[in-house]
Amino acid sequence: MPIDVDSFEKLRLELRRGSLVLAVLAALKDERYGYTLRKELADAGLEIDEGALYPMLRRLESQGLLTSEWREEDKRNKRFYRLSDDGAALFSELADEWRAINASLNRLI
Amino acid sequence: MPIDVDSFEKLRLELRRGSLVLAVLAALKDERYGYTLRKELADAGLEIDEGALYPMLRRLESQGLLTSEWREEDKRNKRFYRLSDDGAALFSELADEWRAINASLNRLI
Repeated sequence: MPIDVDSFEKLRLELRRGSLVLAVLAALKDERYGYTLRKELADAGLEIDEGALYPMLRRLESQGLLTSEWREEDKRNKRFYRLSDDGAALFSELADEWRAINASLNRLI
Repeated sequence: MPIDVDSFEKLRLELRRGSLVLAVLAALKDERYGYTLRKELADAGLEIDEGALYPMLRRLESQGLLTSEWREEDKRNKRFYRLSDDGAALFSELADEWRAINASLNRLI
């Protein structure tokens, strides 16, 4: 039975999904707005669509992990995001979890 | 706004979910049955419930990534699983993806 492209794509997305949240939290230790956040992630090798990023930011803010504020910069209104104190605490725990998962995978692979 | 335990737990599970598939594929380069597979994962630091493992094995088999056969061992019938050729090819691609995600996260964290 041949595997279809969808199966690979689905597994690849599952692998990326959890990592993207961690990457976004990591990038928001410093305040950024949408464009600079996406650019930082892309420069690190993690492309993320606007259509995926903005819902994730809203969800993380509604969970109390991020704060945001509108501010004018270069004559345009931009929404700036950064980690809340709770977000920083959760980021630290998730990063530990990620290191533990990595150590396990390195043993298996 | 305090973050609840559920938020952390949900993000932690998202982070683990994709990795578990990769871990299962890695462990099934050699043939194993359920118990020895779970033990190998647990020994590597990745605990997985039977209630999560068996549906995953069925899904991976229905996708053509694993093959299985029933065989008697120590006077008990056991279902043995191993990677198919397609599964081995996909595992190799996913492992590359995982290394790329890790490199990105290491840059960000």
